[in-house]
Amino acid sequence: MAGLLEPDAALDLALAAVPPATRATLPIGDCLGLVLAANAAASADLPPFDRAMMDGYAVRLADAGSTVEILAEIAAGDGSVREPLAPGQAYPIMTGAPVPSGVEAVVPQEQTRLDGGRVSLPERIRPHANIVPRGGECAAGQSWAAAGGLVTPMTIAAGIGVGATHLEVHPRPLVAVVATGSELASDPRSPGQIRDTNGPMLAALFQEAGAIVHRQVVGDDADALQGCLAAAAANVIVLTGGVSAGTHDEVPGVLRALGAEILFHKVAQRPGKPLLLARQGRRLFVGLPGNPLAAHLCACRYVIPMLRRLAGFPWRPHTGRGVLRSAAPANSERTWFLPALVEAGSVLPLLPVSSADLVRPHQANAYLRLEPGASAIPAGGEIAYTCFGADAWPR
Amino acid sequence: MAGLLEPDAALDLALAAVPPATRATLPIGDCLGLVLAANAAASADLPPFDRAMMDGYAVRLADAGSTVEILAEIAAGDGSVREPLAPGQAYPIMTGAPVPSGVEAVVPQEQTRLDGGRVSLPERIRPHANIVPRGGECAAGQSWAAAGGLVTPMTIAAGIGVGATHLEVHPRPLVAVVATGSELASDPRSPGQIRDTNGPMLAALFQEAGAIVHRQVVGDDADALQGCLAAAAANVIVLTGGVSAGTHDEVPGVLRALGAEILFHKVAQRPGKPLLLARQGRRLFVGLPGNPLAAHLCACRYVIPMLRRLAGFPWRPHTGRGVLRSAAPANSERTWFLPALVEAGSVLPLLPVSSADLVRPHQANAYLRLEPGASAIPAGGEIAYTCFGADAWPR
Repeated sequence: MAGLLEPDAALDLALAAVPPATRATLPIGDCLGLVLAANAAASADLPPFDRAMMDGYAVRLADAGSTVEILAEIAAGDGSVREPLAPGQAYPIMTGAPVPSGVEAVVPQEQTRLDGGRVSLPERIRPHANIVPRGGECAAGQSWAAAGGLVTPMTIAAGIGVGATHLEVHPRPLVAVVATGSELASDPRSPGQIRDTNGPMLAALFQEAGAIVHRQVVGDDADALQGCLAAAAANVIVLTGGVSAGTHDEVPGVLRALGAEILFHKVAQRPGKPLLLARQGRRLFVGLPGNPLAAHLCACRYVIPMLRRLAGFPWRPHTGRGVLRSAAPANSERTWFLPALVEAGSVLPLLPVSSADLVRPHQANAYLRLEPGASAIPAGGEIAYTCFGADAWPR
Repeated sequence: MAGLLEPDAALDLALAAVPPATRATLPIGDCLGLVLAANAAASADLPPFDRAMMDGYAVRLADAGSTVEILAEIAAGDGSVREPLAPGQAYPIMTGAPVPSGVEAVVPQEQTRLDGGRVSLPERIRPHANIVPRGGECAAGQSWAAAGGLVTPMTIAAGIGVGATHLEVHPRPLVAVVATGSELASDPRSPGQIRDTNGPMLAALFQEAGAIVHRQVVGDDADALQGCLAAAAANVIVLTGGVSAGTHDEVPGVLRALGAEILFHKVAQRPGKPLLLARQGRRLFVGLPGNPLAAHLCACRYVIPMLRRLAGFPWRPHTGRGVLRSAAPANSERTWFLPALVEAGSVLPLLPVSSADLVRPHQANAYLRLEPGASAIPAGGEIAYTCFGADAWPR
């Protein structure tokens, strides 16, 4: 296929076209699963006060081995101001409660003995035992989370603990999915009309990949398409043809009329040969084929890595090698990406009935890559795979 | 720790307490990432008509080797009724277009030659070549997706293609997260008050696990707590103490007053010894410790597997073995679950500064399990881990 771009060169061009990840300061509760765009510094000490780590008695070291007076208990959340601890006294204290001044250690309840309304302390008490000092987990001003880190549920809790209300993150990319073709109808009544399957499929794929997706259907009308593309407020605008060749051929012309630069058009791959990438300012346009399997492959192999990079994530999906449960076919002249189900190292190729068939491969979670001219591999042979969907992005 | 339940026995009891996964018929677009609760049958043929697989000419077999008359082109989405194809004629046809009656094959454009307004066909034409017959991918009435399968983006597209508007699935579990403790405040102004970190952390964990989460904060008031629990419309109600021991001790009494059966209380583990599980009808109550690390461990190790089972998923998270980047400590008498960061087979234990510290472990994606009395393992030694979060559930 002289003249066509090879699939790896196309992926390199696609990733190189991605502008630097955007940044935003978002409420911490909206940051789950995003990547930190900057180091985060604590705005408050954690803990905010010297804190008891155990249920027990707050004591002075000099009282080790003595029997001392029991003062009023201090519970977690106790906001009353307590007298500094004097010699010969102890405060009963609960885990998490603030330690009053004068206290030098907390002695666990099981190391003490009640003795006629007083309490007997052990012979040896370690200084600062069972007290987390104010700021001991994180002091105000200290960096507690590094740029590039993932915001996990624990990050949210730690951040709230150190006083963060917002985090600076790479926000979710915005994707516009534009399905083109006058034959698309949500409830087709006339012959030749078909349901739009690509739009919902692509929206689901990009949502799974962490994007915010806006979806539209446009008929075979270059002016309407151009207006739609000019207005699309998104990082990436993904077009998918209906199945009409006429529509598809309009896309490069419409993009040029918008002033977009065509970065590539047509890739030496099967399915997905008509793939197109264009750029206008910071907006990227991806023209996907109308064939559903081709649209799926191109979305997984090219668009989702672009979205991952935009959101500050690594873009290489998980790959592996497994054993074929049934034969992989021989290939002809173009690189062939074949859907497969990979489970516990076992690889089942899901050959579609036709080039557009989604029914048979719908449980696939990986693509096999058959190089040009590759021989068939029998069942039991080993083969490499690249995961997509939830299986593609473990750390 | 005689008398305390062992961690594996506690997990078995927790899973055994989960009622059968619920079922619901949901709009197909809302089913992404859910498990099918029943086989799905096609309500329409896919494709809905005999469909061209290539751009080319729709021809009769008897015209192989002849030069024939060219009729008006048929585009994808063409709804007009065409005359049956007569001998000596060919329809130019686009990929995806409906094939008129009388057509016996579609010949790809590159195998033909234009000849003075007519087209020359190849010598050999295979019957049905490049035609997907009506229902060829899936016939109406045929099962196209099996119970237990995951709804993927491709499942949504395939389902729309075969006429599905809804799917019968196991819906997202409903979880109520109830943080208890009068010391909890969203913007603490008085000393001793702390921010609620457990509520947002647990909500994020359960959302990541696919649940719909409703969150509440209740003060140290048994009546208010009982009213809240009685009213909670959820599959699983998760309580997390503040840090006050008083509050926590109220939970079993309040649950008994509601008529709930306590299935277990206290587990021989560190952190998370006070873990409690109760059941009332189909509702499950989980009492988590107020210590944030303990609440996290118990949520990952017990609650999320329960939620996965409720949603029809496998509940065993991903486990593996890796090489320690720094030493794992020796353990005393209770099973110790220690957060760690696992990356490419390398395991970094993230020892918290104190028993409640979330700052240091917030990038963890796995727990290490140190058995009672286990010796320290030096850096470079091998250790088993269990993933949590997004890393826990690859297929």
